[in-house]
Amino acid sequence: MTQPKSSKWFLDYLSPNEAHMHGITDVVYTKKTAFQQMEILDTESYGRCLALDGKMQSSEMDEFIYHEVLVHPAMLTHPEPRKVFVVGGGEGATLREILRHKTVTHAHMVDIDEEVVMASKDQLPRYGAGAFEDPRTKLSFMDARRYLEETDEKFDVIIIDISEPVEEGPAYLLYTREFYRLVTERLTGEGTIALQAGTTSVGKLINLTAVHNTLSQVFPVVVSMQAAIPSFGLPWGFTLASKKNDPRTFTAAQVDEMIKSRVTGELEYYDGDAHRFCMHLPKYIRKAIAEQQYVIEDNAPLFTYN
Amino acid sequence: MTQPKSSKWFLDYLSPNEAHMHGITDVVYTKKTAFQQMEILDTESYGRCLALDGKMQSSEMDEFIYHEVLVHPAMLTHPEPRKVFVVGGGEGATLREILRHKTVTHAHMVDIDEEVVMASKDQLPRYGAGAFEDPRTKLSFMDARRYLEETDEKFDVIIIDISEPVEEGPAYLLYTREFYRLVTERLTGEGTIALQAGTTSVGKLINLTAVHNTLSQVFPVVVSMQAAIPSFGLPWGFTLASKKNDPRTFTAAQVDEMIKSRVTGELEYYDGDAHRFCMHLPKYIRKAIAEQQYVIEDNAPLFTYN
Amino acid sequence: MTQPKSSKWFLDYLSPNEAHMHGITDVVYTKKTAFQQMEILDTESYGRCLALDGKMQSSEMDEFIYHEVLVHPAMLTHPEPRKVFVVGGGEGATLREILRHKTVTHAHMVDIDEEVVMASKDQLPRYGAGAFEDPRTKLSFMDARRYLEETDEKFDVIIIDISEPVEEGPAYLLYTREFYRLVTERLTGEGTIALQAGTTSVGKLINLTAVHNTLSQVFPVVVSMQAAIPSFGLPWGFTLASKKNDPRTFTAAQVDEMIKSRVTGELEYYDGDAHRFCMHLPKYIRKAIAEQQYVIEDNAPLFTYN
Amino acid sequence: MTQPKSSKWFLDYLSPNEAHMHGITDVVYTKKTAFQQMEILDTESYGRCLALDGKMQSSEMDEFIYHEVLVHPAMLTHPEPRKVFVVGGGEGATLREILRHKTVTHAHMVDIDEEVVMASKDQLPRYGAGAFEDPRTKLSFMDARRYLEETDEKFDVIIIDISEPVEEGPAYLLYTREFYRLVTERLTGEGTIALQAGTTSVGKLINLTAVHNTLSQVFPVVVSMQAAIPSFGLPWGFTLASKKNDPRTFTAAQVDEMIKSRVTGELEYYDGDAHRFCMHLPKYIRKAIAEQQYVIEDNAPLFTYN
Repeated sequence: MTQPKSSKWFLDYLSPNEAHMHGITDVVYTKKTAFQQMEILDTESYGRCLALDGKMQSSEMDEFIYHEVLVHPAMLTHPEPRKVFVVGGGEGATLREILRHKTVTHAHMVDIDEEVVMASKDQLPRYGAGAFEDPRTKLSFMDARRYLEETDEKFDVIIIDISEPVEEGPAYLLYTREFYRLVTERLTGEGTIALQAGTTSVGKLINLTAVHNTLSQVFPVVVSMQAAIPSFGLPWGFTLASKKNDPRTFTAAQVDEMIKSRVTGELEYYDGDAHRFCMHLPKYIRKAIAEQQYVIEDNAPLFTYN
Repeated sequence: MTQPKSSKWFLDYLSPNEAHMHGITDVVYTKKTAFQQMEILDTESYGRCLALDGKMQSSEMDEFIYHEVLVHPAMLTHPEPRKVFVVGGGEGATLREILRHKTVTHAHMVDIDEEVVMASKDQLPRYGAGAFEDPRTKLSFMDARRYLEETDEKFDVIIIDISEPVEEGPAYLLYTREFYRLVTERLTGEGTIALQAGTTSVGKLINLTAVHNTLSQVFPVVVSMQAAIPSFGLPWGFTLASKKNDPRTFTAAQVDEMIKSRVTGELEYYDGDAHRFCMHLPKYIRKAIAEQQYVIEDNAPLFTYN
Repeated sequence: MTQPKSSKWFLDYLSPNEAHMHGITDVVYTKKTAFQQMEILDTESYGRCLALDGKMQSSEMDEFIYHEVLVHPAMLTHPEPRKVFVVGGGEGATLREILRHKTVTHAHMVDIDEEVVMASKDQLPRYGAGAFEDPRTKLSFMDARRYLEETDEKFDVIIIDISEPVEEGPAYLLYTREFYRLVTERLTGEGTIALQAGTTSVGKLINLTAVHNTLSQVFPVVVSMQAAIPSFGLPWGFTLASKKNDPRTFTAAQVDEMIKSRVTGELEYYDGDAHRFCMHLPKYIRKAIAEQQYVIEDNAPLFTYN
Repeated sequence: MTQPKSSKWFLDYLSPNEAHMHGITDVVYTKKTAFQQMEILDTESYGRCLALDGKMQSSEMDEFIYHEVLVHPAMLTHPEPRKVFVVGGGEGATLREILRHKTVTHAHMVDIDEEVVMASKDQLPRYGAGAFEDPRTKLSFMDARRYLEETDEKFDVIIIDISEPVEEGPAYLLYTREFYRLVTERLTGEGTIALQAGTTSVGKLINLTAVHNTLSQVFPVVVSMQAAIPSFGLPWGFTLASKKNDPRTFTAAQVDEMIKSRVTGELEYYDGDAHRFCMHLPKYIRKAIAEQQYVIEDNAPLFTYN
């Protein structure tokens, strides 16, 4: 039997009947913000981590998986993304990945929780890696839905990087057909979006399948992906939607070529081969998506963990 | 914050600094066998589960993922597998998947721990689903390496379904170059093998990469795969090796066609699309495999969790 | 560092920020009754245990401490207890201790939850040890307060053996001045009562002190006691109240003599020496009792864990 | 069911099958010293705590219980303690309690682990409360047994405040008959000693009873005491031994009078009434002590948790 070395643990309840325990070495920062409980912890296995409301959001060791899957497939699905909008994205790593695309001239991130962003800048500097200081970046602290309702700007790519929908939080209105409709209106003609869509664990596919089905009401192209982000304790889903282009038609060579010409630096997770891995799914997940008929609406919202 | 409902938990230490907690409803069976501590538990999220030495081995809810990935890609890589050998495979589910292949005439399973097999027949009947009673099945209880050393039989496919190598157990001698060399000698000309190769979590790729590299010493074709088996708490690796055929050349349509003609019943995880998912890997895993130079040998064995 | 052997644990939250973990070997019985969640578990350290709503109620190994402290000091405070009433007492061990007193001719136990009593008879036979079958025993299943309101019987001793007051349960109305007033009316002239009064942990003395102070409104003699019941994970308080006699005046020799003449069998926890231990308290607990001014009332009930 | 608020926990394994979980808010200090793993943690329920080798040693909220029971009964058993020796006592609180006795002119503390003492001075200033700076204090960092072997000084009181005996540590040689014999030789004619003697949990009385029996080989008066120190998760034992005087003969009034005349400041746990509580024990503990025949020797040492 494997013997524990840690005496101090972060206990992340994935559901009322399942939890993942992380040995911790330090509590770097904790704060009850206006919106959520934030914790920055040093863990034995995953380095420095951010948790919100008791749930692991990202870790230094494997955040590259989450952020590359979230950002790059969507960015490459657009032929030349210049203006990008980020909903949420507190830690700055989503912004960091977006700014690696040479075509980008404007990246506007709107997060409701200024305290999380500020603490991330201070305590998680590797996440943003200078993204907040990039001259192409614009940062606002407000409800992203309201922002999109009030603006008439258009964006080539919109990345939605928010927590899961829970009853206590405002995030659930960023998962509805009405919101996605609004998003399409703020996208240019070849616009694409991507978002994290909750766990893909067996028996817990409601989040991914409902998001997929809801997006299918307003986008012609919808692609769900699965990634293993070990610090999450469960496999995770992501969904990409596009007004025109379908990334499933890209060959591995094309993806490698696009990355080479459009992206600065070295990616760690995503390339042509990984694109194949991303564009395909196990049969039971595809089947669950195909069978899902629920459309998330403002009046019929999805609440995870209910 | 998600609130726990369970008061009873199975606490699976994945490493000295990480654990996964499963809410349990019942302890169905526990036994200290001659080789290991066996527990059969009813869990809230994954149904009935088997644990050995405190580690989750498989759950009713997601064992189909593990067993389909382990068995079918290897079986299809051989054009017509008739005689199949299983090293380990206690629960019977590996045998079950093998016997779905109409070409199979003999399936010989050699597990060192009779008590685990017998308890699985009794308490986990859905796993074997009649496989132990199939007339094509032969069951022996002994050290599989010794069996293969002493026999002169040849097999078309050999599935190695054993625990990870730990210092206390005999399994570590089933992970070495010498053992794999022996395996090739017991394979027919187009013989293939497959095995589980430990977690693929970031920073913990030693098992997968060392197995992959060691197999590359004796097989011309070696393919590693990643699957998310949620009850394991961490993503998992599998490696397939073949004396001749390379499954990466199969198109999705070919895989679907082979399954249709050769496999009875409906698979849940694996098909043409899932084959694409299986045959490709994230970039960082491929890189770690490429960089691994360690060859596991009887005199330089690999011990997981050390 | 002590290394865990158990892989299966009962996790008892003592407060939102503190828990005690018991290694378990079996789940003997679980049932959602009309009133509470009941679990009977076999533990490594404390034998068979009863838990209600996720909280340890008693264990085979140390229930003798709880039940002897609860019953015997109160019984001996009365010169000749014949009729005894038990509020709650599901497992039957309180009844068992009462029936050891040769003077007792009637023992009437009123528990609201028939299912807990029946499961205890079946699965915890050592607790009752035949008490339910004793001809002196009468058993009713109803709200004990209502019973006492409607009867005009009188009792020499009343033992209140119930869970702590929580908002969801009916128990909180069995902790109020109004209820204790009713109790005095149902007691004979030298009547005494005893009850468990929650943890005596530092900073968590509200339960004990409020019960003590409330009882002081209606009884001339009130004595609080502390006992260490290891399976509870925290030290525990008990309070005895009497209409006339004060057990603090008993010498050790008198207690030993009373036990010898009035009690059958061998006690394990309580005797003359232990009486001294019981009748005295650490200074900080006495101080907290002296300072407590809160009187629990039907309209101002106490809720533990709030 | 009580719901957890903490997401970060200190998990203290009390035995291989039992643990106590403390919600923590901060990790103040951690250090692998030459002798042990030290952690200073801020907890939700007990304030700042010291843990050594994963075990709770003391907490700001309830260390007064531990240190008052350890020090004052022994100090009062001597009519006029002037020179006091402390074996261990890292945090400084034992020294603090000793120095409250006006008779004391010299207090010499010998702890093997300088790093624990230095970190306690910095991070746990309330524990020492100036004791390290008191002109009567002398501090040495070495093996206390060797110190006592080499010195010819005599002391009126010796307080042994060390961890439990484990195989890895040097403490086990401070629990043997040979060591206690040495201690008597370094005591003046009315000399007394006291030490913590491990848990008094049911079925785990080996530590207390063996220490008691071993001390009885070399001291005419041996008194064991039980105290509930909630942060320990289990009840705890202490043993006092004396060359001449027996504290069990003191009345409560005498104890109160001695405290008034000899001790500065206000005690929180110990006084005349509490003395009665301390000097008596539950029957099963007295019985276990009476039956214990094991004498701990250098060649037959006691190892807790084995």
